[in-house]
Amino acid sequence: MTAVVCEALTQDAIAGFGHLIEATPAKAFEINDGWTERHHALATVDVEGADAIVSMFRGRARPLVATMLERHPFGTQAFVPLGGRPWVAVFAEAPDAPLRAFLCRGDQGVQIARNVWHHPLLTLETQDFLVIDRARPEENVEVVTLSPALPVTP
Amino acid sequence: MTAVVCEALTQDAIAGFGHLIEATPAKAFEINDGWTERHHALATVDVEGADAIVSMFRGRARPLVATMLERHPFGTQAFVPLGGRPWVAVFAEAPDAPLRAFLCRGDQGVQIARNVWHHPLLTLETQDFLVIDRARPEENVEVVTLSPALPVTP
Repeated sequence: MTAVVCEALTQDAIAGFGHLIEATPAKAFEINDGWTERHHALATVDVEGADAIVSMFRGRARPLVATMLERHPFGTQAFVPLGGRPWVAVFAEAPDAPLRAFLCRGDQGVQIARNVWHHPLLTLETQDFLVIDRARPEENVEVVTLSPALPVTP
Repeated sequence: MTAVVCEALTQDAIAGFGHLIEATPAKAFEINDGWTERHHALATVDVEGADAIVSMFRGRARPLVATMLERHPFGTQAFVPLGGRPWVAVFAEAPDAPLRAFLCRGDQGVQIARNVWHHPLLTLETQDFLVIDRARPEENVEVVTLSPALPVTP
C-alpha cells in the first residue's frame, strides 16, 4: 500500500480539477475609494438547473486516509477554510487512476470543477469551511469506495 | 450629527435586509460518515442573468463613518470574514431612511439581499473577506452620497 504524498497547491497544479481561491494580486483592483482591494472572480459558480447555496461545513480532524471518491455531475463545489488551518484536497482523473493530493494552506480555498472525482473533506485540524455548491446535493453525487484505502502524507 | 449605534447581528434583526451566515445547529446534519457537520443552505445566491462568482475582498481598517449607500438591483452579495475579526454591516430601507448598523462577530457573515441599500465594506481591522456576488458588478450598482456623513459607534 503506497502512501499518496501531497503536492503544493497552485492553480497550475490543479488545472482540470478546479480553481484555486486565494488572494491573487494579478486579479486585484481597488474599489470603495481605496479602502478595499477586490481580487475578482477567482472562481465562477456553475450549478446546472438548481440554486447555488452557501453552507458551512464543520470539518473534524480525521485520519489522513483516502477511503472513497465522489463527484458532483451537476455542480461546482467550493471549500474555503475559515479557521486559517491547513487541509488536504484529493483528486483523481478516474476512480481507478492514481490519486493526486494537495496540501492547502489555511488561506487557500479550492473550487472543485463539475464531475471531478475527489475525496470528501480532509482537514488536519478541526475547523469550519465556507462551502458554495448546488442545492439538492442528494441528487448530485456519485460515490466509489477505494480498496485498499490509501494513506495520505501531508 | 447623531451617531448610528450598532445593534447585535441576528437573523431576526436583519430580516428584510439579508441573511446571516454563521454556524446554525438547527440547519445542521452529519455527512461524510460523521467527519463533517453540514450547516446547510444558510443563504441562496440570486444573480439574475449573469454568473455567480467567488472573489476575495481585502478590507482595510477605516474610520467608522457612513459616507454613502449603494444597492445591487440584480444580485445578492455575501460577505464572510476570513480573519476572524469583527466588522460592521450598515443598511437602510431607503437612502433618506434612518441607518441601521450591526456589529458582526468575526465568525459571522452576511448575504445582502438584492436591491437593499447598504454601506460598502466597513471592517474594524484589516482582513480578507470571501465575497459571493454577480459577475459584471459595474452594471449592477446604484450609489447615493450621505450628507452629512454619519459616525457609526460599534
